[in-house]
Amino acid sequence: MKKYVYSFKEGKVHMKDLLGGKGANLAEMTNIGLPVPQGFTITTEACNEYYEKNRQLWPALIDEIQTQLKTLEDLTGKTFGGGENPLLVSVRSGAKFSMPGMMDTILNLGLNDVTVKTMEKVTNNRRFALDSYRRFVQMFSDVVMEIPKSRFERILDEIKEHKGAKFDTDLTADDLQEVVDQFKALYKEVLGEDFPQDSKAQLLLAVTAVFRSWNNERAILYRQLNNISASLGTAVNIQSMVFGNMGDDCGTGVAFTRDPATGEGKMLGEFLMNAQGEDVVAGIRTPLTIDKLMEINKEVYDQFMEASTLLENHYRDMQDIEFTIEKGKLFMLQTRNGKRTAAAALRIAVELVEQGLITKDEAILRVEPAQLDQLLHPTFDATALKNAKAIAQGLPASPGAASGKVYFTAEEAVHAARVNGEKVILVRLETSPEDLEGMVEAQGILTARGGRTSHAAVVARGMGKCCVAGCETLKVKEEEKKFYIGDKTYNEGDFISLDGSTGNVYEGVIETKTPELSGHFGILMAWADEVRKLKVRTNADTPKDAEQAVKFGAEGIGLCRTEHMFFEEDRIAAMREMIVAEEVEARKLALEKLLPYQKADFIGIFEAMGARPVTIRLLDPPLHEFLPHSDEDIADLAKTMGITFEKLKASVESLHEFNPMLGHRGCRLAVTYPEIAEMQTRAIIEAAIEVKKNKGMDVHPEIMIPLVGDVRELEYLEKVCRTLADNIIKESGTVLEYMFGTMIEVPRGAVTADEIAKTAEFFSFGTNDLTQMTYGFSRDDAGKFIKDYLEKGVFEQDPFVTLDQVGVGKLVKMAAELGRSTRPEIKLGICGEHGGDPASIEFCHKVGLNYVSCSPFRVPIARLAAAQATLKEKLGGGYSQK
Amino acid sequence: MKKYVYSFKEGKVHMKDLLGGKGANLAEMTNIGLPVPQGFTITTEACNEYYEKNRQLWPALIDEIQTQLKTLEDLTGKTFGGGENPLLVSVRSGAKFSMPGMMDTILNLGLNDVTVKTMEKVTNNRRFALDSYRRFVQMFSDVVMEIPKSRFERILDEIKEHKGAKFDTDLTADDLQEVVDQFKALYKEVLGEDFPQDSKAQLLLAVTAVFRSWNNERAILYRQLNNISASLGTAVNIQSMVFGNMGDDCGTGVAFTRDPATGEGKMLGEFLMNAQGEDVVAGIRTPLTIDKLMEINKEVYDQFMEASTLLENHYRDMQDIEFTIEKGKLFMLQTRNGKRTAAAALRIAVELVEQGLITKDEAILRVEPAQLDQLLHPTFDATALKNAKAIAQGLPASPGAASGKVYFTAEEAVHAARVNGEKVILVRLETSPEDLEGMVEAQGILTARGGRTSHAAVVARGMGKCCVAGCETLKVKEEEKKFYIGDKTYNEGDFISLDGSTGNVYEGVIETKTPELSGHFGILMAWADEVRKLKVRTNADTPKDAEQAVKFGAEGIGLCRTEHMFFEEDRIAAMREMIVAEEVEARKLALEKLLPYQKADFIGIFEAMGARPVTIRLLDPPLHEFLPHSDEDIADLAKTMGITFEKLKASVESLHEFNPMLGHRGCRLAVTYPEIAEMQTRAIIEAAIEVKKNKGMDVHPEIMIPLVGDVRELEYLEKVCRTLADNIIKESGTVLEYMFGTMIEVPRGAVTADEIAKTAEFFSFGTNDLTQMTYGFSRDDAGKFIKDYLEKGVFEQDPFVTLDQVGVGKLVKMAAELGRSTRPEIKLGICGEHGGDPASIEFCHKVGLNYVSCSPFRVPIARLAAAQATLKEKLGGGYSQK
Repeated sequence: MKKYVYSFKEGKVHMKDLLGGKGANLAEMTNIGLPVPQGFTITTEACNEYYEKNRQLWPALIDEIQTQLKTLEDLTGKTFGGGENPLLVSVRSGAKFSMPGMMDTILNLGLNDVTVKTMEKVTNNRRFALDSYRRFVQMFSDVVMEIPKSRFERILDEIKEHKGAKFDTDLTADDLQEVVDQFKALYKEVLGEDFPQDSKAQLLLAVTAVFRSWNNERAILYRQLNNISASLGTAVNIQSMVFGNMGDDCGTGVAFTRDPATGEGKMLGEFLMNAQGEDVVAGIRTPLTIDKLMEINKEVYDQFMEASTLLENHYRDMQDIEFTIEKGKLFMLQTRNGKRTAAAALRIAVELVEQGLITKDEAILRVEPAQLDQLLHPTFDATALKNAKAIAQGLPASPGAASGKVYFTAEEAVHAARVNGEKVILVRLETSPEDLEGMVEAQGILTARGGRTSHAAVVARGMGKCCVAGCETLKVKEEEKKFYIGDKTYNEGDFISLDGSTGNVYEGVIETKTPELSGHFGILMAWADEVRKLKVRTNADTPKDAEQAVKFGAEGIGLCRTEHMFFEEDRIAAMREMIVAEEVEARKLALEKLLPYQKADFIGIFEAMGARPVTIRLLDPPLHEFLPHSDEDIADLAKTMGITFEKLKASVESLHEFNPMLGHRGCRLAVTYPEIAEMQTRAIIEAAIEVKKNKGMDVHPEIMIPLVGDVRELEYLEKVCRTLADNIIKESGTVLEYMFGTMIEVPRGAVTADEIAKTAEFFSFGTNDLTQMTYGFSRDDAGKFIKDYLEKGVFEQDPFVTLDQVGVGKLVKMAAELGRSTRPEIKLGICGEHGGDPASIEFCHKVGLNYVSCSPFRVPIARLAAAQATLKEKLGGGYSQK
Repeated sequence: MKKYVYSFKEGKVHMKDLLGGKGANLAEMTNIGLPVPQGFTITTEACNEYYEKNRQLWPALIDEIQTQLKTLEDLTGKTFGGGENPLLVSVRSGAKFSMPGMMDTILNLGLNDVTVKTMEKVTNNRRFALDSYRRFVQMFSDVVMEIPKSRFERILDEIKEHKGAKFDTDLTADDLQEVVDQFKALYKEVLGEDFPQDSKAQLLLAVTAVFRSWNNERAILYRQLNNISASLGTAVNIQSMVFGNMGDDCGTGVAFTRDPATGEGKMLGEFLMNAQGEDVVAGIRTPLTIDKLMEINKEVYDQFMEASTLLENHYRDMQDIEFTIEKGKLFMLQTRNGKRTAAAALRIAVELVEQGLITKDEAILRVEPAQLDQLLHPTFDATALKNAKAIAQGLPASPGAASGKVYFTAEEAVHAARVNGEKVILVRLETSPEDLEGMVEAQGILTARGGRTSHAAVVARGMGKCCVAGCETLKVKEEEKKFYIGDKTYNEGDFISLDGSTGNVYEGVIETKTPELSGHFGILMAWADEVRKLKVRTNADTPKDAEQAVKFGAEGIGLCRTEHMFFEEDRIAAMREMIVAEEVEARKLALEKLLPYQKADFIGIFEAMGARPVTIRLLDPPLHEFLPHSDEDIADLAKTMGITFEKLKASVESLHEFNPMLGHRGCRLAVTYPEIAEMQTRAIIEAAIEVKKNKGMDVHPEIMIPLVGDVRELEYLEKVCRTLADNIIKESGTVLEYMFGTMIEVPRGAVTADEIAKTAEFFSFGTNDLTQMTYGFSRDDAGKFIKDYLEKGVFEQDPFVTLDQVGVGKLVKMAAELGRSTRPEIKLGICGEHGGDPASIEFCHKVGLNYVSCSPFRVPIARLAAAQATLKEKLGGGYSQK
């Protein structure tokens, strides 16, 4: 029979799939002899079965829970839901991958009207017992029964006001009794029944609530953002309670064994005495740093430091630890590999290798490639910063720099960013999971409360987003849409700037600059470069982008789009003349005007890239993109061009398409107007010859035909381009090697790649368009329904973000195999946006592409992801980073 | 060494690929001992090499031609280009497949200033010699040197006018000498050199001209229309001349061994005495029927009738024969299987079986499926015809009935039809290959001159298009855009009607009706049904269409589109309410209004189909298709709907899409608005139950989800639809079997068909959309560039007409195999327009689909094509119909 419940002693660290990260680590800590409040874990499989069984617990599971509860009673000498020494437990979710703040937790379960009295006797602390009870009633009502938390908070606030209490701690036991009574009355009012007194029933309801919370909106959103499969399920941890809020010899805290912002090898911990865990994380009171614990209780401090070191060495990674001190005794509540900034991840990985704790390969695998993005974010320009006025300082919670308009709610921030396209700084008293979307859209986050382990800080770091937290001089009035610093008022829409690395807050907008990369970055990237098999190229259309990419390690250009060049003001006129031309000759005249511009562009790019290969895609977009569409603009342009409104309007109308995505573009343009392809070929080849002659650079241009679905399209254009190119080279008297190839971005191109490879010397997978056509999704229109798909669980990921390996990937694989079957030495790459997505890069490695190409700022990410792909393959299919 | 030239004695009938149809048949006639003017054939391979060698003849080929010429001189005792008895030859193209009127012919080659004199002596007929020479000079100048024919005709007309000659035959020898002189002067004027006198040089230029004509525009267009590959090339036949115009004991004619319009087993022949072949075909003089030959020369008549019977029995098919009588001696110039109407094809095939000449299987293969279309064309309604005014009668040249506006040039006809969407009757003095496009666009063709073997008649029959030819009471003034009958004038744009079966021409528009099918049709279709493995279903959205299709033999409905139902006036209001609704509840209310309509539709269709399966596709098009788009229309509708303009305008705008083809449609609509799928499912199932209960019919509905690319879409909707359907069935207390399946029309659906088949009980390939997405071609926009592709030879066929087997077909095959790998009993069909295209049907047979589905009028075509597919498979890959 399947086992659904494991005590901490039964569990093992490798059982993460089954017990979740938290459960497995609690088991592991138990196994290595650390002081862990005992308990048991209900498996993720139970969660999945719960959903399969129409969201019902079932008798066999309930029996197992009760058996484990009995064992726990025996172990602790306490009785659950009654007796002389009541056993109280916490109920927490614990998925395989940590999902901070996403899942609901219930503390103090086991309290009822009877046990609260017993607790009062046992602890000799009526206030504590009632305080625990009122917390439990609220949490249970909120999390399990879904009565809005705010209604309980309102009652508490009213009583505090009535009693003249400033803090919760100012309330007396009698006051708290009144809170409990009113809480229970509210419960009855809303649900029409008394607050349940049977602790076992409460426990089962709580377990159900955790399972249910696996599919709450925040959890779904988090999984989407982090590409976590919905099929994993969550485990439930039931752990006997220890109390950090039983008096001044009690406390609770969290600590990172190294600095999660910088990676410095020095513990970063925070704690609060006489508090429960949530008080630290929620940022309601600003906590003390861990070294203060030495002064308060040296013995516990030493014990904690020893346990921390033990844990870090055991897990061979930086740990994020939760602990509680109950009446002077230390308990380890949780440990996990700590979240960290990219800079910290790099430093920690490199230093762990230096300390001999891990290998280079392990170090490479330790850094999440996507996270490197943070390092590449701009910082404030030093000169601009000198003139900037710092108006406040908070905690440097997540590095980076950002400027934007102030908004006070997630909703307004989202609206301002998405609808108005504004850069937004989200300013909140403190953040909560409901703010997640707003944080996604914001440039930076500023909170008045909470430490560097607060929700805002943890989430912002995960996103690589700049965050200043716990900025206490800020008086935030969310409902007034204002914040005050001293007597100065800041309104919604005012510009401020945040430095997440110093914690400084500035007025106005400050200019930013590209960051310097640390030595640890260089070391790790060098290790990665040694390992990876995939080359990394960049998508760059200008010499500036090309230079930037080379700095980041790009080994070539995988996609140089030529159409962007035509939008520049001095060129668009000639481009439009070309489009409006009715005869080949007029078109050729206009193209001749464009030729010197194109050639100059390519000279710049070739000089930036030197001997590195440069793939240049011929004109791709439909011609109507270059023309105005409103009558007014058409009239203006007609005037400028010296033609009649009617003529230009007729041109615009004749170019109108119902589905431009599937229209007259790509190689189809070149088949209709071969003179365009000729002009571009001439520009490429002449530029290459010039750079070769003048600079002595061994230039390697690669002419790429877009949107080929049929080898006959390519054959037709090969004749056009090669004939011209070969003639130019011959006439120049130089030797120039160039390649002729194609994008594979039309499904038919993939399916008939064996045919296409007869003519194409290389394929570059354009997975943006390939995804559009393979799914039949217009990227411009799919936003609406993909949202529905994600919400309804039809999709787990947006296929435009991460390559759909099952469908689109199958075509890529097929095309790679077919292409090689015809031309074994064919060069294969990817230049869609997926080329910078780590999961997609791993796929590209697996199907044996030669290179990926991505935007300059994603080049380092691709280098690392490519190295990880090689290592994961070596380790076999089982390896998983998360 | 490769042999490029074969004498007629060396050739064999099976060498059609190499010698072309004409060459192979000339060889065969020679071999069976018929009187054929001897000659030789230059192979199609030579034509292809000519193009490979940059359009140049090469020495080895020239040598071979000269060797054969020498042999021919020896055989005939004549000398080419000189001597006492000059050898004159004709030079004709001859591709593998007959391409009537498409290729250029040169007669009397071998004449020059010297030989014309010799000919005069030999024939003792100066007029004849000069007449032959002037014809040759004109043809050579026109066809080989591309001097416009009209310039020669003008000279001829001037001389005729000057001499007071009405017909060419009124010109004397001296007059003709003047014609020749002026023709030669024109030649020199245009080309700056004398008319060439070296006959061998003339011959090589003529051969080159034939090769070149393989790629003239008309030839390319004909090949496109008839799906003939450009790679076949044409052969060139060089045949010694015989003359039908040497005097009154000479003549020339063409004959069909059976009636090509009806199939009746009676020779249909026409001839002209003292004429060259082109005079008969071009329709300049109206010819005599073959029985008249008996009176003129009984011996030649009997000889010809015997030869005709021999040829029909030898080829076991109706022959189309050209002959010439030179000084009372019969020569067979050409034989080929005769083109015929569908009715004739059926009758001939069935009667040949009855005569024991061919088997049933052969009979099935003898009828071109696409041709059946003709039979299914409407004829005039008998009652309407009673009131119609016949204004003229011509020859019944191609059966069928048509009404339309009169146009006098192909260009104007094309414009009127394509741009203005008018129904057009093309009225011409006579037609020529230049008129082809106009004929394609016209509903019917009316000519004043020419017989039933004239260009107009032959081409119209091939197209299954109604044609009345040789209507001599018509006075056509093309340049005035008028025709006269007696003193009545008809202008461009007037409506007339043609009956191609009687030859009657009517004033105005006459109502048409569906034709009765002959007994031969029934017999052949019954034979086909015995043989074929593919089932044939129909695409039908209304009970009327369904009934029509059943009459034509449909075995089920493969595609019932539900959206067409919503466009009807009484429903569109509710549909629009549904679309504009912002809340689910309002949407459901509107859907409830639609339910009874949908249900009634399905009841009608189920009743029409009885126990035959009916596949119903749920709503497919994007919702904006149901709303107006101009501000004016929006304002009107808003008023009707009782909502503000702004609200409706906002709805319209929010539904706007950049690429609607790839937008929010198909199953994506149902995922967003499952209530639509629910309403439709309810309508289907309730209708099925009612028909089952009330009519006792064993209804088989099949619910089909469109545009599925991912099995998860289908899973989501399966839950929605099945849950509801099963509940309705359960509540009804009936047993109702229904299927749940999907379209495969998105490339990803094809690629992941193994996954999709886990949920889908059937696949229906929507090859219209599959072609759009696989190629990345928007059907609405591709017209422009596909035209370029066809013109430039990048494509040979429009993939929307005939399934692209290499690419799209590969996906279909893959999906069929993947689908069966998961669900061996899965039902597979095709419901794109390719389902009615014979070549595509053959492909469907090959990949093992269960059925094809096409429009009602194409059902017989599909039945026959399916049978042919089975037979071709049995015969092996080598079989080719053409």
